[in-house]
Amino acid sequence: MLKCIVVSTPDAKFSALALKEDFKDSLRKVSELGYDAVELAVRDPKMIDANEITKLLQQYHLTVPAIGTGQAYGEEGLSFTDTDPEIRRKALQRIKDQMNLAIEIGGSQVIIGLIRGNVKPGRDQKEAEKNFIDCISECLEFRPQITLALEPINRYETNLYNDVRSAKRIIDKVNRSNLRMLVDTFHMNIEEPNIVESIRYAKNDISHVHFADSNRWPPGCGHINFKEILTALDEIKYKGAISAEVLPKPTPEECLRLTIEYYKQLGIRS
Amino acid sequence: MLKCIVVSTPDAKFSALALKEDFKDSLRKVSELGYDAVELAVRDPKMIDANEITKLLQQYHLTVPAIGTGQAYGEEGLSFTDTDPEIRRKALQRIKDQMNLAIEIGGSQVIIGLIRGNVKPGRDQKEAEKNFIDCISECLEFRPQITLALEPINRYETNLYNDVRSAKRIIDKVNRSNLRMLVDTFHMNIEEPNIVESIRYAKNDISHVHFADSNRWPPGCGHINFKEILTALDEIKYKGAISAEVLPKPTPEECLRLTIEYYKQLGIRS
Repeated sequence: MLKCIVVSTPDAKFSALALKEDFKDSLRKVSELGYDAVELAVRDPKMIDANEITKLLQQYHLTVPAIGTGQAYGEEGLSFTDTDPEIRRKALQRIKDQMNLAIEIGGSQVIIGLIRGNVKPGRDQKEAEKNFIDCISECLEFRPQITLALEPINRYETNLYNDVRSAKRIIDKVNRSNLRMLVDTFHMNIEEPNIVESIRYAKNDISHVHFADSNRWPPGCGHINFKEILTALDEIKYKGAISAEVLPKPTPEECLRLTIEYYKQLGIRS
Repeated sequence: MLKCIVVSTPDAKFSALALKEDFKDSLRKVSELGYDAVELAVRDPKMIDANEITKLLQQYHLTVPAIGTGQAYGEEGLSFTDTDPEIRRKALQRIKDQMNLAIEIGGSQVIIGLIRGNVKPGRDQKEAEKNFIDCISECLEFRPQITLALEPINRYETNLYNDVRSAKRIIDKVNRSNLRMLVDTFHMNIEEPNIVESIRYAKNDISHVHFADSNRWPPGCGHINFKEILTALDEIKYKGAISAEVLPKPTPEECLRLTIEYYKQLGIRS
């Protein structure tokens, strides 16, 4: 399994040279600490320089198992289930751009997290699901070689697809081989009655894994039993990345160090 | 320890006879199932008939270890830390009314949950804390025989006092013997790096306990280790109630039954 951690790309729009230097510096540190890969969090692929990023990734011997897309929802409000068709169209285009970026930088997956949106009170859940299926199906067809990884996210952040069972239901309904699932231990700690059983339940769907502890600090800083989770992942023959999507705690530097040390302690091998 | 579960009181304002019958029916069921006590969730004590409730409690041999007050925030937006002094004044009056109700129905504690409020982005956290301390101090002085139980609540519901350490800090700062702490296992599962250690840390402050499983279903429906928590509570000589504040899942009826069965399985004795 690849030892991986999330790094945000600098937005060209705001990117003073300093931000680009920060990004380069993050990749250097991650590489020096012994990570194999980075999950890139990208707001808008049109705002970043894919060639420059590809060069840096090569320079630091890092691969990109997945691209995170949640910022487009958090910062711009784009979602697959908005009632406004124009916003849905923009969200759809954004994910297509992310799939193209994945091809350019040699990535293989694009994460469908918060960009699914949230169903406002009083609105028909079925209509939202139809919007979601329409958008995601068009993306899946657009680049069949790129996997979309649907992430169950806890109830406080969205009311669509909170747990592994509801994500699997929609994956089965859409029924395309490039729609799979990302499981995140922080969300699982809230939503799954039994984390290990849920991993077994989704064994044929899991294509990406986020490690974050119960308090969203680096793994090892809370009470999640990661050993038991790794055993379950071995059992289902998961070979992808273990990617830390965590708060930069106790400090951004310490977070990088604690995570890789814990990965090594757990015996995660490339 | 008292085997307890939360029951909402009917709002006089909306209380068709049917609602009062529902309330009576809930108390009857709770009593028949073998609970010792109910935690009453009350929006506004002025809207309920304390005499009638006292009679029902006697009829069904139920005591009230604590009164929950969160609805006043959820439904009316009252809070101790609102920027509007008029809203703070109303919140203060509401908690005073709840303390009077506690005296009338023979309760002993009033819960300070969401009524603490939430600090909006850009606002000074210190100013909010000062507002909180002013309000709570006035209440504590108003009825010294009634304990206020401050509940650490997870980050998604408030940004004030999310964990046992931050609650203890403010309890120590206010420094009055009738300000104590309510610990809720659902919130602890998200916020406490180690639930048992946090119970030990707050051993002199804990005056009330909520049991809810990791998914906020009845205890036993998720992955929290309640045996280990009970052992820690025994260790610190906790003698109060174990009160289930949970989603009414899988159904309201089943929720009552599953909770009491699990309490008995855990060996909780009155």
